[in-house]
Amino acid sequence: MSKKPCIAVDAMGGDHGPEVIVPGAIQAARTKNLSVVLVGDEGKIKNILGQENIKGLSIDICPASEVVGMEEKPSEVLRKRKDSSIQKAFLLARKGKVDGVVSAGNSGATLACGMFIVGRIKGIERPALASILPTEKKPVILIDVGANVDCKPIHLLQFGLMAEIFARDVLKIKEPKIGLLTIGEEEGKGNALTKESFNLFKLSSFNFIGNVEGRDIFTGNVDVIVCDGFVGNVALKLMEGLANSLTKILKQEVKKSLLAQIGFLLGRRALKNFSRKIDYAEYGGAPLLGLKKIALVCHGSSNSKAIKNAVLMAASFVRNKANLHLEEGLSMHREISLLSKKALENNTQQTKIK
Amino acid sequence: MSKKPCIAVDAMGGDHGPEVIVPGAIQAARTKNLSVVLVGDEGKIKNILGQENIKGLSIDICPASEVVGMEEKPSEVLRKRKDSSIQKAFLLARKGKVDGVVSAGNSGATLACGMFIVGRIKGIERPALASILPTEKKPVILIDVGANVDCKPIHLLQFGLMAEIFARDVLKIKEPKIGLLTIGEEEGKGNALTKESFNLFKLSSFNFIGNVEGRDIFTGNVDVIVCDGFVGNVALKLMEGLANSLTKILKQEVKKSLLAQIGFLLGRRALKNFSRKIDYAEYGGAPLLGLKKIALVCHGSSNSKAIKNAVLMAASFVRNKANLHLEEGLSMHREISLLSKKALENNTQQTKIK
Repeated sequence: MSKKPCIAVDAMGGDHGPEVIVPGAIQAARTKNLSVVLVGDEGKIKNILGQENIKGLSIDICPASEVVGMEEKPSEVLRKRKDSSIQKAFLLARKGKVDGVVSAGNSGATLACGMFIVGRIKGIERPALASILPTEKKPVILIDVGANVDCKPIHLLQFGLMAEIFARDVLKIKEPKIGLLTIGEEEGKGNALTKESFNLFKLSSFNFIGNVEGRDIFTGNVDVIVCDGFVGNVALKLMEGLANSLTKILKQEVKKSLLAQIGFLLGRRALKNFSRKIDYAEYGGAPLLGLKKIALVCHGSSNSKAIKNAVLMAASFVRNKANLHLEEGLSMHREISLLSKKALENNTQQTKIK
Repeated sequence: MSKKPCIAVDAMGGDHGPEVIVPGAIQAARTKNLSVVLVGDEGKIKNILGQENIKGLSIDICPASEVVGMEEKPSEVLRKRKDSSIQKAFLLARKGKVDGVVSAGNSGATLACGMFIVGRIKGIERPALASILPTEKKPVILIDVGANVDCKPIHLLQFGLMAEIFARDVLKIKEPKIGLLTIGEEEGKGNALTKESFNLFKLSSFNFIGNVEGRDIFTGNVDVIVCDGFVGNVALKLMEGLANSLTKILKQEVKKSLLAQIGFLLGRRALKNFSRKIDYAEYGGAPLLGLKKIALVCHGSSNSKAIKNAVLMAASFVRNKANLHLEEGLSMHREISLLSKKALENNTQQTKIK
């Protein structure tokens, strides 16, 4: 039997701190399928652990004296905050003491620590942040949602590869359908980046369904939607903003009558559910894919359930050997990359590689 | 007294055709502040006009024998559909017989006819499509929403200029606040395009409030949001998709009880209102700015109210001499352009031009 996955949890991150993070980590540990290491203020963590029945659970503490603020610059966190919970969590990962990291803290700092302390898988040009969004039918992965603002076609192809393996291994989707986020469904629509990327995706062995538009994100007819991190991050924040704004506009509409208010109680709950889902709670966190160890970036406002789900997702990633599959995919991908360069030169874009 | 604005209306465009377009144009003509020319199938148009009391209204017909389908390629429409309602409407504009064009037909073809038949204002590098979105407080203009997929910083600056003048002249906003759509509010956040553009906007005499994020679109704290047409179009379609999806998810949630259904009746109406607003109905259409004559691109599913509002908006654009103001703005802009190039070279970006 293989060793249980061990996940480091930044106990100090997020808007609510250890009071929310530690109980979430404990809930994950109760599944007995994993171990957790809580990183942060030892006294505070012990205090919260003392209030719960954790007998038989595999929970350790790694002390860290500093807490990174939500507004601190990632570069400065890397340089100066050597004893912060976020840096120490990634150091545990680098040393091989844990298999993954979960943090609801400063997301820029989490990305930076992941990239520079743990490092990329060989062959991955750019790790990318994936967001798992609810749709009418099933979750859809949007990648990249902010790790890389200026991208080349080969980066988008790699984002597709990483999300495809994540969809198979963690979300258990067979033959994930991959689409390219652009404007206009027909081939040849989009900007320079998506047009070139389209040709690479066509050459790949992915289950590539072609271009998809912003409105297709929510239909559930596609499993993975690939875009650059600028577009993805604009999209993600837009969804948050629109969901919040709809809630407010509805609120304004229904202030008028009792019946409307009764109605709104229901509508608001549904909207809030939706809004919270967009805020990562349902799936716990946004996986940062392409690192040597998995990292999950949780929303600052995460509740215990979100932390629990993020830890479970990180463990599932490890248990299903997603990084190994990614490396295998990459060796296939190197062929794609070479072939596609050749094909683009020769303008013979008909080959389909198996 | 100056001549009334005269607007050509493509009577054949849109999902519903002349039965919806012609009554919308008549409603606009009833304001007596403008003339309309209905372009399309003379028999059908006369038939609909015959059912209404149009005595004293300034309504003309320009016959056109062809109708452009929603899926036809813009380049082929330009080349082959010489007697289509959309081409003839723009030909009237080129000949100076009308001051603007409104169409709910094939939007790609409308853009192409606008650009190639009417042409750009001298000095405008790229005409851009603006969308007027409802927010919690007041409308916000998002520009460009799809006319230009790959842009340079100078294009974004011009989009800002065009939208600023539209906001002043047509939406009657004093000192419109202009923001740059990017990821992260601080200076220096974003991709290569937005970072460079930020420096240009800082140098301009605009009421530039800096970077805004996707979530800021709906708060109403900014009047004009500038982005490239790829990002803007993704955003626009995302909003449509999310509003539709929320409606469906809510519907699923409330199938359970009578109370919930009563509540949903209200929620659905509010959501539909919102969704219709995003679909251009409230403000009629998306103005294509930077052409020698104004053009309004209406949603294919436009109702008569949307057509009426689009015609009124086009007339208001003409009446307020927005294009003249744009040309005046451009002469100032040429200084900005030169100065900003210089400043970027010298890295002295402190100057504020009045």
